Amino acid sequence: MTSDHNFVLTCPIPIQQYPTVLLAHGGGGKLMHQLIESMFVPAFSNQTLNVRHDAAAIALKGQNLAFTTDSYVVRPLFFPGGDIGSLAVNGTVNDLAMVGARPLYLSVGFILEEGLPMETLWQVVQSIAQAARAANVQIVTGDTKVVDRGKGDGIFINTSGIGIIEHPQTIAPQSVQPGDVVILNGDIGRHGIAIMAVREGLEFETTIASDSAPLADQVLQLLTAGIEIHCLRDLTRGGLASALNEIAGAAGVEIAIVETQIPVQAEVQGACEILGLDPLYVANEGRFIAFVPEQDAERALDIMRTYNRTTDPITYRVDNQDQVNTRSLDHSNMVPCIIGRVTGKSAGIVKMESRIGAQRIVDMLSGEQLPRIC
Amino acid sequence: MTSDHNFVLTCPIPIQQYPTVLLAHGGGGKLMHQLIESMFVPAFSNQTLNVRHDAAAIALKGQNLAFTTDSYVVRPLFFPGGDIGSLAVNGTVNDLAMVGARPLYLSVGFILEEGLPMETLWQVVQSIAQAARAANVQIVTGDTKVVDRGKGDGIFINTSGIGIIEHPQTIAPQSVQPGDVVILNGDIGRHGIAIMAVREGLEFETTIASDSAPLADQVLQLLTAGIEIHCLRDLTRGGLASALNEIAGAAGVEIAIVETQIPVQAEVQGACEILGLDPLYVANEGRFIAFVPEQDAERALDIMRTYNRTTDPITYRVDNQDQVNTRSLDHSNMVPCIIGRVTGKSAGIVKMESRIGAQRIVDMLSGEQLPRIC
Repeated sequence: MTSDHNFVLTCPIPIQQYPTVLLAHGGGGKLMHQLIESMFVPAFSNQTLNVRHDAAAIALKGQNLAFTTDSYVVRPLFFPGGDIGSLAVNGTVNDLAMVGARPLYLSVGFILEEGLPMETLWQVVQSIAQAARAANVQIVTGDTKVVDRGKGDGIFINTSGIGIIEHPQTIAPQSVQPGDVVILNGDIGRHGIAIMAVREGLEFETTIASDSAPLADQVLQLLTAGIEIHCLRDLTRGGLASALNEIAGAAGVEIAIVETQIPVQAEVQGACEILGLDPLYVANEGRFIAFVPEQDAERALDIMRTYNRTTDPITYRVDNQDQVNTRSLDHSNMVPCIIGRVTGKSAGIVKMESRIGAQRIVDMLSGEQLPRIC
Repeated sequence: MTSDHNFVLTCPIPIQQYPTVLLAHGGGGKLMHQLIESMFVPAFSNQTLNVRHDAAAIALKGQNLAFTTDSYVVRPLFFPGGDIGSLAVNGTVNDLAMVGARPLYLSVGFILEEGLPMETLWQVVQSIAQAARAANVQIVTGDTKVVDRGKGDGIFINTSGIGIIEHPQTIAPQSVQPGDVVILNGDIGRHGIAIMAVREGLEFETTIASDSAPLADQVLQLLTAGIEIHCLRDLTRGGLASALNEIAGAAGVEIAIVETQIPVQAEVQGACEILGLDPLYVANEGRFIAFVPEQDAERALDIMRTYNRTTDPITYRVDNQDQVNTRSLDHSNMVPCIIGRVTGKSAGIVKMESRIGAQRIVDMLSGEQLPRIC
């Protein structure tokens, strides 16, 4: 397919259109998708990679392992609700959780910039250690590189993770079926907006904190309870909209969601309006969607609600886009919730019934909305 | 030990002495060692990490896995004998090989700088794919981040790897015993000098090429042949001298090596003299040392020679340091070779008998010799 015969092949990305790498190539949207699909997957092609899931599922001498990697380049390093250290643990733990694995071991690779204050490194290291204890994973191997001043940006961290899959289910886009309901475990947009608020110097009545959190426990609880889980996906770069599109595409289905069912914290909604962002595309670090058969949905919701209870006012947008009036409710036991369902086979379409009753196509993130949010 | 009780602890690196991260903190020498020993290991402490080996050995439901990570920040991206892509595969494969594991799966995490030519990325991707095929490993999961122009340096790559340990031996510093011989698989210094020659614009009669190569096959052959391997270590950052010191320290032994037994390619020796470098400290990417009992040494050498045959002229320095006359021999079947032995228990000392018969202590690399060579 690629250089199996040592042919020098033409670059699969149209060079005239994209002569260089853009920020959007890492943004979780269309350009990143193109890079993965046209360049990486064909070049590295194998059965495991081709599944295109958050973590690779590996069968090894009778054991089913999950293996995943993520680099973290978030800016600033510290933000309300977290920092690059806890993010690097939670993000990778969550990728393992998204195949239903029990996270066990992490590696940590630092790329430090010459001149980084030693105290900053120490704070990040403590945060990694604390987050690893909270997520019940061990850091068993590591690496440290230092690059010259001006060739990095403080700290970049790679964490890779190994987990064990102890259930017989195939949690993957390919298992998604028409009739499945889509459950969202909480309100969306906090992480991206928390980062942007710091960067832009925005102040709100209360500080918007990242939702960064480990998700493995609640996924394992769902599995232990015998819930049939068809697919899981955490809503990081590209947000809910991109995650839905990725799964719709990989599963070959149409997904219909209902806008008024999607919870957004009131201040996040306000910040999105100020910043001209759509919360559907804003990154989260403690939110995921689960595809389950309708008959398992209520039991799944009951379990997920024990983990995601909130007393923050949650907003469901009810009016038209030009005149957004939000009603704040105490949804302390109303999130997580069902936000939509799989309506049939298709080439991969996500539709949303808007608050005024109209249907529109929800596309994958185009361009770069929020660079370096993870 | 660290923040188990959520105490805010003092930074374990003396801030007055090292207020910021220096290039040497990633150089493989004393400062990196201090960072690992005072900060990372105590903060992340667990039984597996504390072994301090190239890869973590993990017992998982009856299987023994190896897990390792490395980030690659080499500059320039392309050099004689390799590039950042093949290096990222070989380096991680070799870390797995150093615990005697069969490398199976790699992750690849890219941190790209905005503005990187797409063709450059494509070349690196092809090189990764080719090196993975050569090393018989699959790339099963990946990640791509893009940082703004001026906040990275073209391409950084993290590869993490999983291997399986199919032998019952404990290949680790703790298994090293007095009486063990130290075998080196080839001439040293090529990789670091190949990189430096490009950076400094040095030209030699023949181009010095990196020794970058996957080592797992020959290690597995040694194991299959029933060689008792006590420890293995690849000679990357900090070179042979630092690897010997790390093992001597972790094993609590004294190691004595003989300078005239250490092969160096004639042109590498010449370049080292021009650059004021000691080949003992120069990084390699296809060289390793093996600690084996004396009775297994000849059989080990026979196997290793089938993998490391060279027709390049190899130099053994024979005169005094002020007046180096090298004798070039056809050592096509003389490398690998025994370079020394473990002479007793100690706090961790490496001694070298020099070419004039004197003994000197060989210390760990101090400061930063060659930044960003891997």
